[in-house]
Amino acid sequence: MGINFRNRDIITIDDFSRQELEYLIQKAQEMKKLEKSGQRYQLNKTLEGKKLASLFYENSTRTRTSFETAMHELGGTTFGFAGPEGTSLMKKENILATVMMYWANHADAAVMRHSKDGSVQWAADVLGIPVINGGDGKNEHPTQALLDLVTIDELVPGIDGLNIGFGGDLAHGRTIRSNALALSKFNNITIHWAAADELAMPEDLIDTLKKERGVKVKRYDSVEDVFRNSNIYYMTRPQKERIKGLNEAQINDILEKYKIDMHKILSNPNIKILHPMPVDSSTAEIDITVFFSGNQYFIAQAENGVFLRKALLYEILNETDHILFNSSIDEKVAAANDKDYITKSDDPNKKSDINEKPYVGKIDYGVVIDHLEDGITAEIEAKLQFSKRGYRVTSVLHEPSTKTGKLKDFLKIKDKLLTPREIKEIAMISPNATFNIIKDRDVVEKFKYNLCKNENCITRVVNEDVPPKFDKIGKDLRCHYCRKPYEKLCQIIQNLKNS
Amino acid sequence: MGINFRNRDIITIDDFSRQELEYLIQKAQEMKKLEKSGQRYQLNKTLEGKKLASLFYENSTRTRTSFETAMHELGGTTFGFAGPEGTSLMKKENILATVMMYWANHADAAVMRHSKDGSVQWAADVLGIPVINGGDGKNEHPTQALLDLVTIDELVPGIDGLNIGFGGDLAHGRTIRSNALALSKFNNITIHWAAADELAMPEDLIDTLKKERGVKVKRYDSVEDVFRNSNIYYMTRPQKERIKGLNEAQINDILEKYKIDMHKILSNPNIKILHPMPVDSSTAEIDITVFFSGNQYFIAQAENGVFLRKALLYEILNETDHILFNSSIDEKVAAANDKDYITKSDDPNKKSDINEKPYVGKIDYGVVIDHLEDGITAEIEAKLQFSKRGYRVTSVLHEPSTKTGKLKDFLKIKDKLLTPREIKEIAMISPNATFNIIKDRDVVEKFKYNLCKNENCITRVVNEDVPPKFDKIGKDLRCHYCRKPYEKLCQIIQNLKNS
Amino acid sequence: MGINFRNRDIITIDDFSRQELEYLIQKAQEMKKLEKSGQRYQLNKTLEGKKLASLFYENSTRTRTSFETAMHELGGTTFGFAGPEGTSLMKKENILATVMMYWANHADAAVMRHSKDGSVQWAADVLGIPVINGGDGKNEHPTQALLDLVTIDELVPGIDGLNIGFGGDLAHGRTIRSNALALSKFNNITIHWAAADELAMPEDLIDTLKKERGVKVKRYDSVEDVFRNSNIYYMTRPQKERIKGLNEAQINDILEKYKIDMHKILSNPNIKILHPMPVDSSTAEIDITVFFSGNQYFIAQAENGVFLRKALLYEILNETDHILFNSSIDEKVAAANDKDYITKSDDPNKKSDINEKPYVGKIDYGVVIDHLEDGITAEIEAKLQFSKRGYRVTSVLHEPSTKTGKLKDFLKIKDKLLTPREIKEIAMISPNATFNIIKDRDVVEKFKYNLCKNENCITRVVNEDVPPKFDKIGKDLRCHYCRKPYEKLCQIIQNLKNS
Repeated sequence: MGINFRNRDIITIDDFSRQELEYLIQKAQEMKKLEKSGQRYQLNKTLEGKKLASLFYENSTRTRTSFETAMHELGGTTFGFAGPEGTSLMKKENILATVMMYWANHADAAVMRHSKDGSVQWAADVLGIPVINGGDGKNEHPTQALLDLVTIDELVPGIDGLNIGFGGDLAHGRTIRSNALALSKFNNITIHWAAADELAMPEDLIDTLKKERGVKVKRYDSVEDVFRNSNIYYMTRPQKERIKGLNEAQINDILEKYKIDMHKILSNPNIKILHPMPVDSSTAEIDITVFFSGNQYFIAQAENGVFLRKALLYEILNETDHILFNSSIDEKVAAANDKDYITKSDDPNKKSDINEKPYVGKIDYGVVIDHLEDGITAEIEAKLQFSKRGYRVTSVLHEPSTKTGKLKDFLKIKDKLLTPREIKEIAMISPNATFNIIKDRDVVEKFKYNLCKNENCITRVVNEDVPPKFDKIGKDLRCHYCRKPYEKLCQIIQNLKNS
Repeated sequence: MGINFRNRDIITIDDFSRQELEYLIQKAQEMKKLEKSGQRYQLNKTLEGKKLASLFYENSTRTRTSFETAMHELGGTTFGFAGPEGTSLMKKENILATVMMYWANHADAAVMRHSKDGSVQWAADVLGIPVINGGDGKNEHPTQALLDLVTIDELVPGIDGLNIGFGGDLAHGRTIRSNALALSKFNNITIHWAAADELAMPEDLIDTLKKERGVKVKRYDSVEDVFRNSNIYYMTRPQKERIKGLNEAQINDILEKYKIDMHKILSNPNIKILHPMPVDSSTAEIDITVFFSGNQYFIAQAENGVFLRKALLYEILNETDHILFNSSIDEKVAAANDKDYITKSDDPNKKSDINEKPYVGKIDYGVVIDHLEDGITAEIEAKLQFSKRGYRVTSVLHEPSTKTGKLKDFLKIKDKLLTPREIKEIAMISPNATFNIIKDRDVVEKFKYNLCKNENCITRVVNEDVPPKFDKIGKDLRCHYCRKPYEKLCQIIQNLKNS
Repeated sequence: MGINFRNRDIITIDDFSRQELEYLIQKAQEMKKLEKSGQRYQLNKTLEGKKLASLFYENSTRTRTSFETAMHELGGTTFGFAGPEGTSLMKKENILATVMMYWANHADAAVMRHSKDGSVQWAADVLGIPVINGGDGKNEHPTQALLDLVTIDELVPGIDGLNIGFGGDLAHGRTIRSNALALSKFNNITIHWAAADELAMPEDLIDTLKKERGVKVKRYDSVEDVFRNSNIYYMTRPQKERIKGLNEAQINDILEKYKIDMHKILSNPNIKILHPMPVDSSTAEIDITVFFSGNQYFIAQAENGVFLRKALLYEILNETDHILFNSSIDEKVAAANDKDYITKSDDPNKKSDINEKPYVGKIDYGVVIDHLEDGITAEIEAKLQFSKRGYRVTSVLHEPSTKTGKLKDFLKIKDKLLTPREIKEIAMISPNATFNIIKDRDVVEKFKYNLCKNENCITRVVNEDVPPKFDKIGKDLRCHYCRKPYEKLCQIIQNLKNS
């Protein structure tokens, strides 16, 4: 078949071909057969001496425990940290140093969960061992999507032609995104859904599914309507910690109409209810009576998580050698395309001019920052404290642009070489800032800073020092870490250049 | 002997016969002999491949660690969670789903500790694998009682005829209850005790011991008097977190007179001091000098915990097959006798009348709740928000009872089917509420809700959705979970019916 | 060679001879060779059945994890607790009882970290199994120093003649102290350093290194100057939690000039940067670009931690028998020289007089405390509440000393035998207090209480009940636990006796 997962990173479900998905589904079901025929430990020599680093910066019980169970049954071990106490332990150490430490302690692979989108891609880039995404921010949770496929495949004659209902909080969970993208690899999929506006499926996901993947997506007013049109209903819990502007009582009110109970199930008594778990017992988005009913398949789904992870770890680590620790970090990890250089040809007149504005003294060495939003200079000083730290700073406020007439700020810092972190912080405050690096009285470098627009992206966490990087995927430029498209900013930059 | 613990739940010490207790004591002492003869790992093939889920919702070091040691020495493993971070991890997931998840991860048995009485019985009902109570609320801690017996049996010629002293906090700890019930299975036991009134032995326990079990229970004014009359003194720490209305300094003051030190020990230099540990080092209910003395047996007692748990796990799990996970929950778990139906014969006139009170409009479908305490209706609305959620609610306040003349409230909710959780919440606010379910303009069901009177019972935690259930034990009706007697409420209900 | 570490405690680096250090360095490098030649698990039968108790009262990831990895690769296991949740779990149980519990659970050795100086020595005294110091307060971190030596030895032709730079926070970390003491065992060592005054090397350490150990210690104004004079630069993070009187922003300001970045490295492009890790990512005392550079050796250093700890555990535990648990605590542990007895010959007149001051009634039994600082009596009552607890207390305030004329307080407590804890608490409030124990109207014992002057010493934590003990080391009297010199107080006492 040519399918090979050895030492492969598992970051996003979207990287998998249909063939690969089917292969993993089959392997998971073989693991299930072993268990159900009483051979739980038949493969327990397979990963002997192999260690999985279990790096959970965010709470997890199910995902973490099932990886642990899977390693154990294959003869391997796990070590690492879990939950907020894990992050408090290490809040001052950046991800790069932390994950390297687990490789230095001879991990053969790592599974990681973190609150920031793209964080697991960063870890995978840093580490020479395979890394599995256990959930990154609002982004992805690929092994959940895989185990969902395993369960769906058990419950229907085949995934092609599936009618599936989605419910609960479709806006904030990473499960829905990963699940929908996984299903989109199959043919003739229809997603039926009903949810409050505040918890509706994101437009960009619907767009991707409909326009690029040929998935039918239909919204309904009531859960009962979705039930009637579906074989399987995939319920999700309100991600209360991620829903902004609503308190718990308000969220519960909004959900009231969309909760699953035995009365709603009357509209389709054959409906099979899935849920990635945990169910939120204060909201009770699934009523307790459903737990005891024949429509409940979410607990079987949880056990399938063990089989899927067992299959995946088997595929990634079986018959591999230990990857010896390498304490120097590959330079390609640090490589970034974070600077959008503006060459003379972009602006043939300006380059030599920036240091010669009549009303600020010319400097030998330092930086001039222009195209700053009007009035933003004070904010930059408050954050970065160049003056307070003793640098000679000249600010020009409310300078009218020669071209647009719009007011802008302008900043000159003498004898200062900006650090990458300082450049990033200025760009986060004023995204259109143009940096002019002055040496020997001349502008030797001129650029705008390319920063991912996704506010939850790992590249925007200053202390992590992840350099922005963008990959060409098809015709899109996408953030290398969170995979959000970048064209919008490029557009802005292009417009600015043209202005 | 016919004694068999295979796959058996260990919930309460009271379930054990004297013969069974003696059997376990002997087995623990055999484990100790193995250790002391240098054969710590002689049985380390016994539980190979067996996993114990260690589910500690409350802090524990000793109990949890000794189960872990015991499994390890028998060749098995443990997994699970510990302490408040464990509960914070899962505070939104109910016990049912959480414990099922550990079975889905192929636990062969579970040990559980939780702050609520009866919680471990609930878990045991849900799970198909054996469950051991590691401490449930103020209720029981059976493996502690068993290891205490192992230690006592070492220190005296035989448990029959034992004179034991109890001290410290006899009111709030589960250890004292389990220990006393265990001793009551032996002959001619005398419990001597001295404690502050606030920390005195509970009257119901003394009653049970004296009247039903033939245990002599004698109170003294001073610890020295108890020492003089005892061979063994069982000290306990103040359960500060469970003592209401007193701050730490006040508790320490109260205990001052009852602390154990070498001076008090002069009154009986042969006294052997036990303590379930931990000793509270800020209170120092046992002075540090006692730790270094020959009267100290509480550290040996801690090691006996390992032997007892090793013996118990051996008895429960040796030569058993894995119990394969079953994702559907046995219906008998959901079965409850939470409704006390009131039939026409109870009240031949009323049944048809309830929907016909002259001053409220007759409804086709919904619920009428009467016998509500005077003025309680507002509290029900505040909690359950029927009006706010859009239901048509009619309240009648301060209605004089036709029989007693007492004022009562009365509530009619149109087009509403109460959920089990709503019924429980109303009954918790107004225990004598009578629910009249209306369909087609007629009362089709009429009942009071049977709720355990023990405020710390798991059935009273709304989000857990544990249905109240009562077992006939002897002539008593007892809560199936916390085992507290229920006759009192039945009496009240009977009185009401007769009123 | 006669070097033998079997069952030996590892408390302070200063206990090792040069020969022993070299032996351990060599053994660690042999472990590294095994790993790098693909034989990670070649020794995995060595510690089969051996358990290491991992008792981390303070946060640790690196140290704890590397001990875990080392045990795992040698075929042993670890158990215990980690981080603040560990201490909160057990905050009420003293160290003595906690560590005994892990031995009762059949630990073969223990590694411990705690916030108090000398705490690990106390645990080692209590336990019959070998104990390794994983960091005690501001005191020592010997295995870090050992792994630093392993790394230094790799990077330079030999440790003799080493020029090493120290930077960052030299005042508050235990790493610098242990590292410098370790290096001082070698010949012709020069330590070059630059740091803010607030974070400067402690004078007492510089004194010891220069005067007693023949180490050259040179301070510079800039990091660049240190770089130019060194082969290796040992950077450390600001111990923000231990720096009093400065907030995080102020600490970052102070460090600004001393941070390591690629520009400073230009002053010596061959400099090899070490750091015990974690780097504080908010301060970024090492810039991210250095992580990717060829000057970075701190990640290799982290892996060396695994090899050092593997070698150390091998040396301590290989071919040893299990040390069976002994539940009685050796009396020598409780032995203390906490009382400085004042005999008649010290003061031939006074001894019989103390109970006969004309203005206080003579007592039959109790205690008289004099030499109390003027006005301190109220503070003692506030803390110890003798009156409130019902004792008859006579205070004499502002009594002029017959010799010095200085005002002092005087306290007589009838029918009270002070507990060791009470004596310690009084001495902590008023260090020169003299205790006169009265029995049968006569002074039967008269003493001052010897309390370690180090405020972070474990002996000063009242609830731990560690009895002060002082060892004669050379001509010094040093605290048995934190090893701080005691002569100063002895001097004071001598002066008082002579006054």
